[in-house]
Amino acid sequence: MDPTRFETHPDRYRHWKLTVDGAIARLVMQVDGDHPHRPGYELKLNSYDLSVDIELADAITRLRFEHPEVKACVVTADLDRVVCSGANIYMLGQSSHSFKVNFCKYTNETRLYLEDASAHSGLGFLAACQGTTAGGGYELALACDEILLVDDGNSAVSFPETPLLAVLPGTGGLTRLVDKRRVRRDRADVFCTVAEGIKGKRARDWGLVDALVPRSKWAAEVQARAQALAAAQPALPRGPAVRLPPLEPSISPTALRYRHVTVAIDAAARTAQLTIAGPDGPPPADLAAAGADLWDLRAFRELDDALLHLRFDYPEIGVIVLRTSGDRAHVLAHDAALDRDGTGFGREVRLLQRRVLKRLDNTARSIFAVADRADSCFAGILLETALAADRLYMLVDGDEQVALATSPANAGQNPTASGLSRLEARFYGEPGRVEQVLARGAEGPIAGEEAERLGLATIALDDIDFADELRIAIEERASLSPDALTGMEASLRWVGPETLETKIFGRLSAWQNWIFTRANATGEHGALTLYGRPERPSFHFTRT
Amino acid sequence: MDPTRFETHPDRYRHWKLTVDGAIARLVMQVDGDHPHRPGYELKLNSYDLSVDIELADAITRLRFEHPEVKACVVTADLDRVVCSGANIYMLGQSSHSFKVNFCKYTNETRLYLEDASAHSGLGFLAACQGTTAGGGYELALACDEILLVDDGNSAVSFPETPLLAVLPGTGGLTRLVDKRRVRRDRADVFCTVAEGIKGKRARDWGLVDALVPRSKWAAEVQARAQALAAAQPALPRGPAVRLPPLEPSISPTALRYRHVTVAIDAAARTAQLTIAGPDGPPPADLAAAGADLWDLRAFRELDDALLHLRFDYPEIGVIVLRTSGDRAHVLAHDAALDRDGTGFGREVRLLQRRVLKRLDNTARSIFAVADRADSCFAGILLETALAADRLYMLVDGDEQVALATSPANAGQNPTASGLSRLEARFYGEPGRVEQVLARGAEGPIAGEEAERLGLATIALDDIDFADELRIAIEERASLSPDALTGMEASLRWVGPETLETKIFGRLSAWQNWIFTRANATGEHGALTLYGRPERPSFHFTRT
Repeated sequence: MDPTRFETHPDRYRHWKLTVDGAIARLVMQVDGDHPHRPGYELKLNSYDLSVDIELADAITRLRFEHPEVKACVVTADLDRVVCSGANIYMLGQSSHSFKVNFCKYTNETRLYLEDASAHSGLGFLAACQGTTAGGGYELALACDEILLVDDGNSAVSFPETPLLAVLPGTGGLTRLVDKRRVRRDRADVFCTVAEGIKGKRARDWGLVDALVPRSKWAAEVQARAQALAAAQPALPRGPAVRLPPLEPSISPTALRYRHVTVAIDAAARTAQLTIAGPDGPPPADLAAAGADLWDLRAFRELDDALLHLRFDYPEIGVIVLRTSGDRAHVLAHDAALDRDGTGFGREVRLLQRRVLKRLDNTARSIFAVADRADSCFAGILLETALAADRLYMLVDGDEQVALATSPANAGQNPTASGLSRLEARFYGEPGRVEQVLARGAEGPIAGEEAERLGLATIALDDIDFADELRIAIEERASLSPDALTGMEASLRWVGPETLETKIFGRLSAWQNWIFTRANATGEHGALTLYGRPERPSFHFTRT
Repeated sequence: MDPTRFETHPDRYRHWKLTVDGAIARLVMQVDGDHPHRPGYELKLNSYDLSVDIELADAITRLRFEHPEVKACVVTADLDRVVCSGANIYMLGQSSHSFKVNFCKYTNETRLYLEDASAHSGLGFLAACQGTTAGGGYELALACDEILLVDDGNSAVSFPETPLLAVLPGTGGLTRLVDKRRVRRDRADVFCTVAEGIKGKRARDWGLVDALVPRSKWAAEVQARAQALAAAQPALPRGPAVRLPPLEPSISPTALRYRHVTVAIDAAARTAQLTIAGPDGPPPADLAAAGADLWDLRAFRELDDALLHLRFDYPEIGVIVLRTSGDRAHVLAHDAALDRDGTGFGREVRLLQRRVLKRLDNTARSIFAVADRADSCFAGILLETALAADRLYMLVDGDEQVALATSPANAGQNPTASGLSRLEARFYGEPGRVEQVLARGAEGPIAGEEAERLGLATIALDDIDFADELRIAIEERASLSPDALTGMEASLRWVGPETLETKIFGRLSAWQNWIFTRANATGEHGALTLYGRPERPSFHFTRT
């Protein structure tokens, strides 16, 4: 067992260079071809793999926490005539289906993090494409606020996936093309089938890029546009800067241990017992002074890291049994303090919690939240984790120690990808319930029977039946087809409105998953399999 | 070659009985097990296959055209204790992937036709479940306005697909559960994993059915509720009734010939040349007097039938090259007459055109519309077919005979599944263009260069380049992976908002397509493969 390392630091980056100069940061892609995520392929021409994306995600998070003065970030590369050639094809060709899907999901989440920083943290992104920008490279550019393309008669943006590889530009590209940049769909159809891409005036006229810049004026124009982007950011509280030290979990085949989060793995039962410990005491008077040790930040960074390990390193775990332990009052006090905090640091902690909760929503494992111990503390921000779960089992105990509680974290601060809060999604059929539950929550804890009556608990049972019912439910769930469960959960978890984000994960990714399984892409004679070899792919032409 | 027969008539139904009594129709499922669509399986326990669904679609269409007096339709069965056990598993187990996907798409379209009739034609549907209603049977019930379940301590509604078959309730079921009926998603999660389903009070309390009725009061209560449903329908123009005679196309491996629609099949090139002829002359003064011979109705019934044949009988045809021939003025005059027509018949013709256009949108083939002949008539309702296509190629001819034209059919009468009109979808990035194009269209035909400038034509070329460019584009398209194209087209065709309908086709169906390819469902040891045999399925438990 060789766990993936999702933690990194700019000092250790192999594939990106992050520099900060006042309000402007530069994130320069310079992929070290000799250091792929796993041996077996070379990262030529700024192609990327999971390691490259882990550094990108780290850089965006650090900009938000450690460099709050930054208002615009230039995303570019230092190769001659090539910005990025997309996800590495050889890596995809030799990866398992499960890895491919999780790699795509992670890259999609990272692209959305750019947009999240732009939308909520006053941090704009400028894609400065001084050469050909292909596939996943162009998808990264699409996630930026603005795209500059050098006008040198050569450099193009392109989506060669469908014509060359028989797969989709699946990192949000198709959706962003027509739904975010609103490229006309018949033009998008042309663009997506022209392997060499589109350059110059046509790229600009079709809305594929925002502006063309001659090579002679490139550096000055990029700098000017970055400054303009920085100047256009809204006035938001910024900082104080807080350093993010490594979490340094202890990871083994049977357990993941962090300060606040522990995961016990039962490989035979295909279940993981994930427990989040609440804060040890009340919140500090000055949240930023606690820095990265602040529970609200540390616990959610840990949860994020644990979820990524579960996705990549424990692919056969089908059911996450989610518990909390601690003092409800401390959780609620932390939520209240964070809600009151008017600093940029406080905002970033709230936004990080929101992103981690979305990562939980988007984790393709069955999630059963369980409140069955006296110290269970599904309160406020931790109640969100129970509402993200597929079900919530609650023990009905005589003295009502097992109970839920609400806070401002449940009242709209943590929208899901659909834009609904988790309470709004739960009560999609009874919208009045949301206010009712929040009003009731303001009066005090909600124990099992009432939680069931209110619609918060899926199943509430007393201790005669509880343990058996839960055990059987977990065993049954772990016995079902993981594919059918993934499709079922993806259909049930996002009720109501759709957004760019839900379209990317629910529609584009579902099609890509299907295409990855097809012989035309990944079979012996498939295009992805044969890429770079002399043989031509051969297709089964049956349409579905 | 044995073409599928999509045309039928109540006199020939084997699987349903349609009776009409005043404002109330009854559609009774009584599947003839010995007459499956293809030999090799028996349709036990009111399980269904394509033949059963073809009759259902026929019945709904005939109710709208031939029985305009009907305001409510009871959907039920005459088996003891079983209403419907869903799609036939043996049929699915022995079908190709392509057939399975197209079968599911057709059943989805048919379920949406019930909802379309209810929403637009004042025809409500009551699912009267006097016994267990499982899988696709319950999905049919979900497509009705109201669901009654007998309260006999036994009869349940259920989705056994995930626990028993390792697939999804893919005929809209998951989406309708949480998005239409707004069943709480954690309850939906429980329901979808309990093979035996949920009955009685819990089924009603969870919103899975609308009411429980004791067996002793069943007949009277169903009748009373049907009458109430009929009485609640809006006052809409009804009729006159128009009979729908068979289209009786001539079908061979190389051609489909109807009165107005012809399809020339080039199997080697994997292309179909589909041509719709416009009306021969101006519209009749009394549209209903022309009845089923009215061009507006006949041509679109033919197009519908041709599309179904292409889907099921010509699965290797990858590109549909769509042309029109005739007199633009006649098309526009027909559109105008239909727009003015205030009868129920006129409304039904407009709604049928709309449904056929959606069938075109939803056909997983690349569609290139081509206007390159002097008699091309992409005008009004036929312009909608060009806007449904992935691209429109236009010849720029010196005397501007090749031109487009607009009518009320382009101005919102034909929304796509997303709710946007095809012009709104095309100009999603420039909403002002819609009014501009409609205003310009009101002044007269729009020839190639102007059509390109306005954004209607994807590519406009003069005759020096046109033929070569088009030939190469078609050849290239036909050479690409059909799977990647399906995913790409599904992502680009529906820009903008999402609806129940787009969620069903774009999200639920995409996941089901993927699941159908997975060994856990359709492999040697998959659950779908082994259903009904003594062996237990064995799963690969890797999660994605």
